[in-house]
Amino acid sequence: MGQPSAAPVPSLALRGTLLDCVADPFFVPAAEAVRYVPDGLLVVENGHIAALGPFTDLQDPYAHLPLVDYSGHLIMPGFIDTHVHYPQTGMIAAYGAQLLEWLNQYTFPTERQFQDPSHARRIADLFLDELLKNGTTTALVFAAVFPESVEAFFEAALARNLRMISGKVLMDRHAPDYLRDTPQTGYAQSKALIEKWHGRGRLAYAVTPRFAATSTEAQLKAAAQLLDEFPDLYLHTHLSENVNEVAWIRELFPQYDGYLDVYDQTGLVRERSVFAHGVQITEAEFRRLSEAKAAISFCPTSNLFLGSGLFRLDRAKSAASPVKVGLGTDVGAGTSFSLLQTANEAYKVAQLRRQALSPFQALFLATLGGAQALCLEDKIGSFNPGNEADIIVLNPRATPLLALRNQAPITADLATVADALFSLLIMGDDRAVAATYILGQRFSP
Amino acid sequence: MGQPSAAPVPSLALRGTLLDCVADPFFVPAAEAVRYVPDGLLVVENGHIAALGPFTDLQDPYAHLPLVDYSGHLIMPGFIDTHVHYPQTGMIAAYGAQLLEWLNQYTFPTERQFQDPSHARRIADLFLDELLKNGTTTALVFAAVFPESVEAFFEAALARNLRMISGKVLMDRHAPDYLRDTPQTGYAQSKALIEKWHGRGRLAYAVTPRFAATSTEAQLKAAAQLLDEFPDLYLHTHLSENVNEVAWIRELFPQYDGYLDVYDQTGLVRERSVFAHGVQITEAEFRRLSEAKAAISFCPTSNLFLGSGLFRLDRAKSAASPVKVGLGTDVGAGTSFSLLQTANEAYKVAQLRRQALSPFQALFLATLGGAQALCLEDKIGSFNPGNEADIIVLNPRATPLLALRNQAPITADLATVADALFSLLIMGDDRAVAATYILGQRFSP
Repeated sequence: MGQPSAAPVPSLALRGTLLDCVADPFFVPAAEAVRYVPDGLLVVENGHIAALGPFTDLQDPYAHLPLVDYSGHLIMPGFIDTHVHYPQTGMIAAYGAQLLEWLNQYTFPTERQFQDPSHARRIADLFLDELLKNGTTTALVFAAVFPESVEAFFEAALARNLRMISGKVLMDRHAPDYLRDTPQTGYAQSKALIEKWHGRGRLAYAVTPRFAATSTEAQLKAAAQLLDEFPDLYLHTHLSENVNEVAWIRELFPQYDGYLDVYDQTGLVRERSVFAHGVQITEAEFRRLSEAKAAISFCPTSNLFLGSGLFRLDRAKSAASPVKVGLGTDVGAGTSFSLLQTANEAYKVAQLRRQALSPFQALFLATLGGAQALCLEDKIGSFNPGNEADIIVLNPRATPLLALRNQAPITADLATVADALFSLLIMGDDRAVAATYILGQRFSP
Repeated sequence: MGQPSAAPVPSLALRGTLLDCVADPFFVPAAEAVRYVPDGLLVVENGHIAALGPFTDLQDPYAHLPLVDYSGHLIMPGFIDTHVHYPQTGMIAAYGAQLLEWLNQYTFPTERQFQDPSHARRIADLFLDELLKNGTTTALVFAAVFPESVEAFFEAALARNLRMISGKVLMDRHAPDYLRDTPQTGYAQSKALIEKWHGRGRLAYAVTPRFAATSTEAQLKAAAQLLDEFPDLYLHTHLSENVNEVAWIRELFPQYDGYLDVYDQTGLVRERSVFAHGVQITEAEFRRLSEAKAAISFCPTSNLFLGSGLFRLDRAKSAASPVKVGLGTDVGAGTSFSLLQTANEAYKVAQLRRQALSPFQALFLATLGGAQALCLEDKIGSFNPGNEADIIVLNPRATPLLALRNQAPITADLATVADALFSLLIMGDDRAVAATYILGQRFSP
């Protein structure tokens, strides 16, 4: 328990263009929402942010720390992926189906393999290295139904000193025998995992019913019981992704007033609840999520790949009843581990809806917005002093094409850095991530 | 004139998994449309395809040729990009506008720079290297309004022995002064470029009015006159991309029956005409394009980036009145030079319309379908003996993630190679392109 074993507690200073969000640019002007230090110094002490400011101001006070010079690069908080399935790492790009067929045809057979601890650990290692290579330092992660799959994931995350959230899938019906638990076994296995892992290092547990169709009412209520019994657990599930799915839930739960109401009346709509997708949700459901301070994970590459539809981000961000939103890759239905590429498609979804998503709004969704969705904004998502030093460095000239595109220096002004950031969101991938730091220690795969 | 200067005429044999289209998989079953040689030999003599077949059959007859072993890789015809703007290479990912504002705000100022021959040549070189790195060996390319921009492009293409099609933009109104020609100067400049470049090496000329809004009727008719005067010219323009654009054309040309009719009655709808986008076209316009044997360039990354809408590929591919379709990146409104990534978003556009785009259909659009759209199927787009040896080699295990995804050997059967191809279309980028051959000579940037 407590701190990760043998956690390094490095101290160092990074020089470069610092960029992070301090407020929500959907609601305040960019100049207020974004902290931009053209030639800055980010000071890390004991794995946490100690100070930040202009290089010329901080250079002398922190002259005793090792300096890494990233001039010409963007230094930003690590990305936060609010919805991803680690067992689906090897099944990205499964052809030709929409949600419900896709689950039966591809997902369930793939997840079966995660009963084997060594397979689970191998994929967990590969998954986490893929996240880190792409600049993602925290994620809310579906494991599989097998407790072994959660053990493997948390072991791999702990070994890397990561802030990660995961949980065992609860699924007691409408799935193959080999993937089904029961309300009782699901509860007991989850409880054992919570007792072992929740709060260990930077790990946290999410109670994880797959979705309302694959859990009986009894299982959903058992999930709520766990949330009542342990402090600070998360609830992580899917909501209203696809039209046929929504219709099926209505058939399965005729006594409830729609999809969200099933979760609500069983006790699962709370401040630390994260619902993936929400493509098809109604105005009343948006209002209820707002009221409950629950969050939605917006997963554009997945929503396009499965043809689910276009998430109404503008509605989620309405001033009258705003809903917390983070970005999710939703690998394996999502098509990339990169939150840059995820932002690319979030922009396209917005454009198809005749909205614009600004580069700073996208940055917010991928960092501080994700942190808020996970109630972690006091720990990650920005460079506020005291926060954990999970940091990424982006190179605006990482490829010949980006170098041609980004000739203006990012130290010039806010408009120039917005433009360079936008080009990275649209054209960038893991090659643009020059470095990823975990608690101030540089990741190398 | 004639052959490119100092053109190498290499002979060699490539071993690997051969995959090309010999018919249209939108109309015939995959097994008939696709030629798949699990362990094959592709024989190149004098820069052209001489033979292909199982390695065991051809190994002895061609033992005298140098052999390159790409076992485990896919060997396919080079990709064909049927719509792209080379002057916009440096302005990919320009933020926040839809079509008409985007032109004024970003495109026109960028294209102004192409009056300078040395700038034009520098960008043309970079553009062509980017295409080749991504496996694109032929493209239909917008230059800028300045003849210098066409000269620079053709010089760069000739130096690389490429089959390329381009032309000077015609634009005599609704553009800044510095970008406008007149019906007379546009005609005369185009004519001089045609006489110098059309048919030289593998180059061909496309008469290139930007779109109906930026050309007067007189200019459109002068464009048609060029098509009458010279054999085998192309017509390359934009059509019905965006709702506001279509409305504007109706205002500008009230005497015509819609957008396509403007081009049609001025003599521009022909077999060698390629219209980019066609997102908003009507059923009658689809029928007219089919009848005229004209082609559409489907540009999904651009259509999503500018929020233009979802192209009706299923309608274009209707059996009753099919329209020829190729894929276009439409850089700089498109967001990638990769036809793999373009296919990724073509699949997503289809999914949003509740259609599926099979991997072989996507392969067809990017190769033989593009060749047919350009009336070049007797030269490129497949491995038919006699065709030009523009060849690409894709590595299904190019990244750790692709290696995990594609564990089944692509020599197994057609379903396995379809699955690996699909993963490359969804997850691949230039890193998956292990080699590009131009007339049998390997490209190195």
